[in-house]
Amino acid sequence: MRPSSSSSEPGPGKTPGGLFDGVLARGRVRGEVDDAAWLQALLDVEAALARATARAGLIPEGYAAAITAACRAERFDVAALGEDAAEGGNPVIPLVRALTAAVPGDAAGWVHWGATSQDILDSAAMLVARRALGPLLDDLDGAADAAARLADDHRGTLMAGRTLLQQALPITFGLKAAGWLVGLDQAAARLDQIRQTRLAVQLGGAAGTLASLGDDGLRVLAGLAEELDLAEPRMAWHTERSRCTELASGLGQAAAALGKIAGDVVLLASTEVAEVSEGGPPGRGGSSTLPHKANPVAAVSARACAAQAPGLVATLLVAASHAEHERAAGAWHAEWRPLRDLLRAVGSAAAWLRDCLEHLQVDAARMAANLDLLDGLLLSERVTAALSPALGRLAAHDLVQRGAAEAASGASLAGVLAADPEVSRHLSPDEIERLLDSSGYLGSADAFVDRALQRPVRNARPADSQ
Amino acid sequence: MRPSSSSSEPGPGKTPGGLFDGVLARGRVRGEVDDAAWLQALLDVEAALARATARAGLIPEGYAAAITAACRAERFDVAALGEDAAEGGNPVIPLVRALTAAVPGDAAGWVHWGATSQDILDSAAMLVARRALGPLLDDLDGAADAAARLADDHRGTLMAGRTLLQQALPITFGLKAAGWLVGLDQAAARLDQIRQTRLAVQLGGAAGTLASLGDDGLRVLAGLAEELDLAEPRMAWHTERSRCTELASGLGQAAAALGKIAGDVVLLASTEVAEVSEGGPPGRGGSSTLPHKANPVAAVSARACAAQAPGLVATLLVAASHAEHERAAGAWHAEWRPLRDLLRAVGSAAAWLRDCLEHLQVDAARMAANLDLLDGLLLSERVTAALSPALGRLAAHDLVQRGAAEAASGASLAGVLAADPEVSRHLSPDEIERLLDSSGYLGSADAFVDRALQRPVRNARPADSQ
Amino acid sequence: MRPSSSSSEPGPGKTPGGLFDGVLARGRVRGEVDDAAWLQALLDVEAALARATARAGLIPEGYAAAITAACRAERFDVAALGEDAAEGGNPVIPLVRALTAAVPGDAAGWVHWGATSQDILDSAAMLVARRALGPLLDDLDGAADAAARLADDHRGTLMAGRTLLQQALPITFGLKAAGWLVGLDQAAARLDQIRQTRLAVQLGGAAGTLASLGDDGLRVLAGLAEELDLAEPRMAWHTERSRCTELASGLGQAAAALGKIAGDVVLLASTEVAEVSEGGPPGRGGSSTLPHKANPVAAVSARACAAQAPGLVATLLVAASHAEHERAAGAWHAEWRPLRDLLRAVGSAAAWLRDCLEHLQVDAARMAANLDLLDGLLLSERVTAALSPALGRLAAHDLVQRGAAEAASGASLAGVLAADPEVSRHLSPDEIERLLDSSGYLGSADAFVDRALQRPVRNARPADSQ
Amino acid sequence: MRPSSSSSEPGPGKTPGGLFDGVLARGRVRGEVDDAAWLQALLDVEAALARATARAGLIPEGYAAAITAACRAERFDVAALGEDAAEGGNPVIPLVRALTAAVPGDAAGWVHWGATSQDILDSAAMLVARRALGPLLDDLDGAADAAARLADDHRGTLMAGRTLLQQALPITFGLKAAGWLVGLDQAAARLDQIRQTRLAVQLGGAAGTLASLGDDGLRVLAGLAEELDLAEPRMAWHTERSRCTELASGLGQAAAALGKIAGDVVLLASTEVAEVSEGGPPGRGGSSTLPHKANPVAAVSARACAAQAPGLVATLLVAASHAEHERAAGAWHAEWRPLRDLLRAVGSAAAWLRDCLEHLQVDAARMAANLDLLDGLLLSERVTAALSPALGRLAAHDLVQRGAAEAASGASLAGVLAADPEVSRHLSPDEIERLLDSSGYLGSADAFVDRALQRPVRNARPADSQ
Repeated sequence: MRPSSSSSEPGPGKTPGGLFDGVLARGRVRGEVDDAAWLQALLDVEAALARATARAGLIPEGYAAAITAACRAERFDVAALGEDAAEGGNPVIPLVRALTAAVPGDAAGWVHWGATSQDILDSAAMLVARRALGPLLDDLDGAADAAARLADDHRGTLMAGRTLLQQALPITFGLKAAGWLVGLDQAAARLDQIRQTRLAVQLGGAAGTLASLGDDGLRVLAGLAEELDLAEPRMAWHTERSRCTELASGLGQAAAALGKIAGDVVLLASTEVAEVSEGGPPGRGGSSTLPHKANPVAAVSARACAAQAPGLVATLLVAASHAEHERAAGAWHAEWRPLRDLLRAVGSAAAWLRDCLEHLQVDAARMAANLDLLDGLLLSERVTAALSPALGRLAAHDLVQRGAAEAASGASLAGVLAADPEVSRHLSPDEIERLLDSSGYLGSADAFVDRALQRPVRNARPADSQ
Repeated sequence: MRPSSSSSEPGPGKTPGGLFDGVLARGRVRGEVDDAAWLQALLDVEAALARATARAGLIPEGYAAAITAACRAERFDVAALGEDAAEGGNPVIPLVRALTAAVPGDAAGWVHWGATSQDILDSAAMLVARRALGPLLDDLDGAADAAARLADDHRGTLMAGRTLLQQALPITFGLKAAGWLVGLDQAAARLDQIRQTRLAVQLGGAAGTLASLGDDGLRVLAGLAEELDLAEPRMAWHTERSRCTELASGLGQAAAALGKIAGDVVLLASTEVAEVSEGGPPGRGGSSTLPHKANPVAAVSARACAAQAPGLVATLLVAASHAEHERAAGAWHAEWRPLRDLLRAVGSAAAWLRDCLEHLQVDAARMAANLDLLDGLLLSERVTAALSPALGRLAAHDLVQRGAAEAASGASLAGVLAADPEVSRHLSPDEIERLLDSSGYLGSADAFVDRALQRPVRNARPADSQ
Repeated sequence: MRPSSSSSEPGPGKTPGGLFDGVLARGRVRGEVDDAAWLQALLDVEAALARATARAGLIPEGYAAAITAACRAERFDVAALGEDAAEGGNPVIPLVRALTAAVPGDAAGWVHWGATSQDILDSAAMLVARRALGPLLDDLDGAADAAARLADDHRGTLMAGRTLLQQALPITFGLKAAGWLVGLDQAAARLDQIRQTRLAVQLGGAAGTLASLGDDGLRVLAGLAEELDLAEPRMAWHTERSRCTELASGLGQAAAALGKIAGDVVLLASTEVAEVSEGGPPGRGGSSTLPHKANPVAAVSARACAAQAPGLVATLLVAASHAEHERAAGAWHAEWRPLRDLLRAVGSAAAWLRDCLEHLQVDAARMAANLDLLDGLLLSERVTAALSPALGRLAAHDLVQRGAAEAASGASLAGVLAADPEVSRHLSPDEIERLLDSSGYLGSADAFVDRALQRPVRNARPADSQ
Repeated sequence: MRPSSSSSEPGPGKTPGGLFDGVLARGRVRGEVDDAAWLQALLDVEAALARATARAGLIPEGYAAAITAACRAERFDVAALGEDAAEGGNPVIPLVRALTAAVPGDAAGWVHWGATSQDILDSAAMLVARRALGPLLDDLDGAADAAARLADDHRGTLMAGRTLLQQALPITFGLKAAGWLVGLDQAAARLDQIRQTRLAVQLGGAAGTLASLGDDGLRVLAGLAEELDLAEPRMAWHTERSRCTELASGLGQAAAALGKIAGDVVLLASTEVAEVSEGGPPGRGGSSTLPHKANPVAAVSARACAAQAPGLVATLLVAASHAEHERAAGAWHAEWRPLRDLLRAVGSAAAWLRDCLEHLQVDAARMAANLDLLDGLLLSERVTAALSPALGRLAAHDLVQRGAAEAASGASLAGVLAADPEVSRHLSPDEIERLLDSSGYLGSADAFVDRALQRPVRNARPADSQ
């Protein structure tokens, strides 16, 4: 929260953070959703509205210039506006009064012309969302780039594929990273699609008719959209909240993609698996009591941030379905905080995961060693397949399962199989050895890595006008 | 739940419903997500897999034909499969055994070749989703068509616009219905987009490598996608669940759009407002104890169905973020029921709302009477605007607010304003009368209706191969 | 967020609020959950731990005194601690370093003795919860007291009972308020029960064994509980999170009770019903554009605050179920923000609803007028009952339903019934008049008000040691 | 779903299950919440109401007996009732018609006397809840008993305590199981408290006044509570839904406790940890493709069931907060399915976890081997503590951390420490060996196990009258 007097702290990076912000509000997204950012966005909308009104010929250009000049966040007192919001139920009402007082001369009478509070706040929310999606998408893309490098670098790094946390079949670490990549690319593509098509200005006046603008409503609406470089909606969406729910859902999906990967890293970094560790800056991951610990702090923090999303998405979905008539009696107010929290949480998860993947240390030797833990049992499916043409799939499955059970008690699977008369009737010891070699049983893993690396091209993102 | 012996009940419409299904599982969607539909979808995938395997040259065409012939749901016992699912943790394992037993000759050994249980169940879930989205989108579109007719028919029907449940400004019922229309069209467009681009087959084998298919994995994958007319994914998505979360989110957004409209209808139908009522079949809406009641049962039921969605979406988002490694230890199993419930709940909400809107009775006279309740106060904003050029916006606002307060105590606003010396300096009694006429203060309402009626064109939907 | 240098702002009431805090962080609860309050709670736990360690004879009393003296929040820089939290994944690690640096002499070496970060943060969370529950319960009780007064004052105020938003039967406003009262009392009772029995200290050391305290662990644990006046748990609850989920659930239930009542007020205050209005301070409820509006801001805001709860409760339930092994890899970190937000949101909802109910203006005349809207139809159930002994319940129901349908078209129900030959065979016109008098058909309404006013007695609440 | 003609399937255990029920509707709870159980509960309430009406002297005893005799679920057609529910919006309306038709003579006219549909359905929901809580609590208690045995049996079984999935300090498996036990006991205690105090009859008539019962309302209400052995509420709770939200929350908390334990089992059973495995019946845990797999199916299924809860709890909390006026317009209908699903999901999770814990195979040797993986590093905290009196805590921490870093590269920690001049100034090699012995560094672990085994005594549970 940036106090209005913080002139000594010029940049957004200087916003003093809260007690939990180092963990839960990581990255540049924090500065894009804090109170100072929201206040500036509200003022940007008021200024753009004045300019749009002037472009429509309703007020002189000079008035618009005067209003625009006054729309600087540092001139207003966030805390006072927040307190005064209680009177009318939203912070735009006191802001309009304060802005009117700050605009000199006749122009003051034209502040907020034609708009209702929700027009300003909803448009500002879309601005905040677009600005927050900048660093958020940068970090998603950065994480995806890191995953792509891991996928390419490790397409030959053998490791155990795990299902239900049991070793199942050999895979490569490249394939695992390729799966991460696809999830991150998809999350980014969806959010970018939402950013480019669904973020729109809001302008309807008190009941969605733009009545106070007479015949000029549509022109002012179009002008406002142009001024803010946001989409122009077909009509006011005061209580048609699909823009909010799509944005929320896109963020929720990104959180799921991030949380899944962070969870994989936490599991791979566990003491007994130990196939990856987090690099990161010195000191990262130390414990207050356990000197030997090197916790995967980035992945753990990414999980914690991502875990905020499902509940916040649900809150926004519920709010959207309770938007009564022309403007809602509480459901709109209920959106402000979860929308902000969702942007921050997912942006923070993306920043942490990017950090995690960019510095991930991969221990290929340990991966190979873990893959040997079951001494060939992972390849039993392959032996089944080799026996199936002769025995049928189910019979082969049951036969190998018996061999696997024997091998699980300590014997070598190759030996057990070679000693089995039914197996040896169809497979020589050499063939058995070949079948139990992991590197020969990777199927289409490499081809899938190639396909994942054919990444979708996104249009260049317009820099924010700010 | 259709018992396997229900040969006397041929059509999907004949599926016996449960105690709450008349209210909570309305419409054709019920028959598309019940156990019989799921079982058939699982079998459709097994059959398609056999054909894809044959197309790739791995098995003779005759084997594929034999397997396909056996894949008829009515030959299997749902309840027994369900019970046996407990052993291995999913119903595909016993189904594969039962199907293998049902296929004659050597073909039996090739049932389920190359696949893991999750391949079959995930692909079947996508089929179920596509089939359920058929009636669901039909009902969404039907509801949207009804809203479009209401918007067009009632573009001249004056009513009170309401914000925070207080009358605010005049609008038309056409404008309100246009807002409903935009929400429904957007919900349908998003779901259709998901249906056409995000429903894909799943095929990865035990750990996502398709190892047991050797070099033929990609060809079988492509063949399976063609056979089922589903998208071909870049790689297995066993634990990259964005297809599920996008589908869930699209359904959640549709639920929000439906719930919002149903809520508006419930409010408009309330005794004191009484501007609409539900038509529907005779007997609908009666009370067990109150003979005079005519409850808006369709809207009430639509709300109840739509209210299921946010929690189910959250459950699916949480599951997606906990999909460990190559296949999840519980998070996948946790998806089956909420995905089915979500399709059913939203499909049911759409069916109810379509019913509601197609039979909605609009009482234009009552709308006009309600608009007169405040005797001109709704137009006070307009008087403010008329006075603002002379007095400035805030001074005009405060002046009119004082007049409104006086009028609220029973006096006529026109009279109060005409008697005010400051007002009368700028406005004649005739001008005041004109300013207080609702029909002249609708701004761009009609233009917005036109814009909403310019509905987005969607591609023709492919009929399901079934 | 209270900056560490805010010595010129002494009281907790002076904490500068954020842009949305006037609406969404109402009441004293805000100051109990902000960063300054959390920081002080963390320090209170460190101080209490030092004293408990001294009481167990492990360190000299003087060391404990020195540590306690240093534990003053204003000496630490919240923003810096927050930033440094990123290194180890929680803010306790940098706090312990800073506190150690702030303690003079040998005592410094004994800061945080035996504890792990989670011991401190969890215990502090319990302190924060207890302190926040103070104003929260005060406001719940204040709201309940106001509801009790309304129930008692209006036990004779007739109004329409409404089901599915349709007028159904006469009730009294007293009965409605009694229902509110029962909900508020139950919510407060449950939260108080949680406060008195479930808020406990946390102390387990790194893995729950208190190993570093040797044989003295249990004595230090008991001492810490005494020092902080919190319950002593049977063992560490680092990953047994029922204390958090019960607290969250209790808050969620309170939110539901508050939201229900606020929703009723919003509906009753709607223009067409107009049976209540909010008093509140002058200026409250004004609109930025509509001079005549008097929005029920308190109820609307209470709804918005209460609407935050279900999603936050779900987030905490999910976190609790993912608390791996001895300390969780993300699920614990995921709790910090939703727990704080939940306390703030529900506390804020309680403050708003108390404000709303304490100033609620009840328009008994309008209630009576609305009750007459249907001209006796509400009493049709009573006529059914009177006819049932003679005709049977269903026949009587159908007969009266036909009469009601006729009356709905404009005729008087009394007239229609008197004119019906079957009715008049059993009921005279006078009897019909008597049956259609609302005041005689209130059943046990008054007795239920009495029962609701027999409010549960709660034990006196211990003042916080602060 | 039990069809009404299923006379050949007598017991509740014979209810045919659905495709996913083997996994997701495990245990006896399924038969307590299916349609047949709900229908019988609705009829039980109608019968009890008739008897209560007779006890109050309003109808002859013979009428009550006749009505009671007709209240047998097998005489009614669930599917038809479900379909007909669409007309009036709930299944009680057609049930009352069908029941009235089934009662011979004059008694038929007194079916449902004084009640509204919601009275019957809410009371039935409470009956269903009580009946479902029977097996659910049995399974929770069974799981807790199994955890208690594990705690007691393994109080001396050393294993690694894990934080953030990193080995941290030695604990015992007994301590871990004790933590599970405390969570299960707490969940059961809370649910039992709810069962004994919060499950109440509902009786208010159409608007909560019991007007149609004249002066006899309270006596019928008391009689109904006695007949059904449910609590008597202070007044109708048609829109005061704390009974539902407390029940839902209690179930949600139980799910969290169950999910946490199941997650621990899944992790402990993972290939690389391999400290526990599931016993269970032969065949359990096999894979359709991987012959060697032995998946922890019970724990995985318990997780999947438990994961349903948070979203369902949220749905019920939202519904409770939207219960308008005297009876809700959708929020009530929205409760039916999630309440049923929640009882089933949590009951199923409890059944699975009981199964899991009762058959859990514990590999103490593997636990010991895993504890040796880090070759003493886990005890570094202890060395820090031993050095702290001489060096101060932070200096000791930093010194040992350096040693640990060296040891992590392959050297023995004992050797590294003994070679360090600063360490050896304070600790002899023998002292270092002693400090690095896990069995001597368990702190209060054993005492905590004892405390956990002092389990809370619950009152005997009343058998259901059924």
